[in-house]
Amino acid sequence: MEQQVVIGVDVGGQTAKCGIVDARGDILAQRVISTESAGTVDEFITSLAGALRAIISAAGAEGAVRGIGVGIPNGNYYTGTVESAVNIPWMRSGNIPFARMLSEKMDGIPVALTNDANAAAMGEMTYGAARGMKHFIMITLGTGVGSGIVIDGKVVYGHDGFAGELGHTCIIRHNGRHCNCGKDGCLEAYASAPGVARTAREWLDGSDEPSLLRSLDSITSKDVYEAAREGDRLARRVFDFTGSLLGEKFADFIEFSAPEAIVLFGGLARAREFLEAPIRKAMDEHVIPLWRGKVKLVFSQLKESDAAILGASALAWEL
Amino acid sequence: MEQQVVIGVDVGGQTAKCGIVDARGDILAQRVISTESAGTVDEFITSLAGALRAIISAAGAEGAVRGIGVGIPNGNYYTGTVESAVNIPWMRSGNIPFARMLSEKMDGIPVALTNDANAAAMGEMTYGAARGMKHFIMITLGTGVGSGIVIDGKVVYGHDGFAGELGHTCIIRHNGRHCNCGKDGCLEAYASAPGVARTAREWLDGSDEPSLLRSLDSITSKDVYEAAREGDRLARRVFDFTGSLLGEKFADFIEFSAPEAIVLFGGLARAREFLEAPIRKAMDEHVIPLWRGKVKLVFSQLKESDAAILGASALAWEL
Repeated sequence: MEQQVVIGVDVGGQTAKCGIVDARGDILAQRVISTESAGTVDEFITSLAGALRAIISAAGAEGAVRGIGVGIPNGNYYTGTVESAVNIPWMRSGNIPFARMLSEKMDGIPVALTNDANAAAMGEMTYGAARGMKHFIMITLGTGVGSGIVIDGKVVYGHDGFAGELGHTCIIRHNGRHCNCGKDGCLEAYASAPGVARTAREWLDGSDEPSLLRSLDSITSKDVYEAAREGDRLARRVFDFTGSLLGEKFADFIEFSAPEAIVLFGGLARAREFLEAPIRKAMDEHVIPLWRGKVKLVFSQLKESDAAILGASALAWEL
Repeated sequence: MEQQVVIGVDVGGQTAKCGIVDARGDILAQRVISTESAGTVDEFITSLAGALRAIISAAGAEGAVRGIGVGIPNGNYYTGTVESAVNIPWMRSGNIPFARMLSEKMDGIPVALTNDANAAAMGEMTYGAARGMKHFIMITLGTGVGSGIVIDGKVVYGHDGFAGELGHTCIIRHNGRHCNCGKDGCLEAYASAPGVARTAREWLDGSDEPSLLRSLDSITSKDVYEAAREGDRLARRVFDFTGSLLGEKFADFIEFSAPEAIVLFGGLARAREFLEAPIRKAMDEHVIPLWRGKVKLVFSQLKESDAAILGASALAWEL
């Protein structure tokens, strides 16, 4: 292979996706491995390195890989370490020199990392709905609520590399739900996929209202979505509530960086038909008049796995 | 005069301060005029232009003024206009081409403007507590609660020029106080100087607790400060409450841009002895563990009028 290529890796709560990407943004080969089945960080990195070698080989790209970009919860762009990623058990120990460890395992190919939401923002800016935008906020709705903030065309890393933890800003001040991060009342405790499932569970327990969800032993956000599609009123109200909370906080975020758009991405964002209207309504109700009706609300059109890989890979071109 | 000079103008709710500044940051002459006594924008600009001519003459700087920088509520850096500044009556009409109007009145000297808090941030970065900092958030506590956000050494203006309206992010979600901006529950409705006075008034009305403030007909934040200095328990609790609300929101702000410091400035920030501890406590309680105890809380040491003039003047060097 004569052309240079890069690798993008997206580490999520359940799985890690990796792909080998050329300069045109085509994914030449990709692979998915389990994140949660690894017992230790060494185990995970060994398994990831195996997958990377497999895609390098599948693409015939031995010797042509310029760098590896990784999107990973709480990844620090400046230091290449991962700190206190609460949704992944083997990361809870904190301060893992992930970039160095992966680079060593990959015979010295350089590795850059940032958090998964920042990587998604780069993917959206390069290939997706935010193409041409200089100011936007990416919100990823999945196992957690992540965020990537773009100002003047650049991802904001902040003083220490960890900027953009909007999922942990406060939405319920008193008696809020306990969040994985250790605080109470975070947006993520309500507007993540598990948060949506928990809202449904709590509402079912707190009333006798009939609902398709009552017959289920355990409820996922996907169940709530499917019930809402079948017209279930309780399930639809769960999305109204979730969307309202998101819209309220988006108003705060707009008052911070005055973005052109809020871009939504991730598994839960697929429930657009039920989330968009309540988000839009709450966002406009809670933002100062200056921005009412002016900030776009955009749902990502990129395939989820592609966007994350492409976004992470964009980091690697800079290596 | 052979050297070039610039003019800095700070327009506040009650007064406007202007000064003529040389390249070393020395203020050669300054003047204060009333903001609130002007009935129309034309009246104000005529009065301001008179003051500017007076300081140019006092400094012997005829023909040597390179530009005029203005810090003004809701000033738009990109367009030079002022939109919906709620605290100044003659500005309520919105969308005033302030920079162009002032420039015409000043025989074509170029004028740049931004909001007063952004100007204060520039002053702090150039001459004050934030010297050498690349990432900080300036909070101005006065007639309103303003903010200037600095990321990578640059003031954030956002997509439309109005970024940094943190005083209008929500602190009380239900039954919050009505804010001048039209929304309810904004931080500014509680943590501005009038907000502090209102808290004291409400608490006096709602209890029989003895307080030095009971003897006063109308209460200002300065009265509350002086009562607190004399050991008044209710007045001290007002600052505890105000500081706690500020600290809670600062936690949200940190989660946005991961600043090295929050810098406090403005009349109310002089109550540091009563505000600092509750702000620090609430900030650390409400921020995710990653930043607990790590973000500096800095009170500006610059003389208020100087800082605003110097900050605004910094804009003019770029003209």
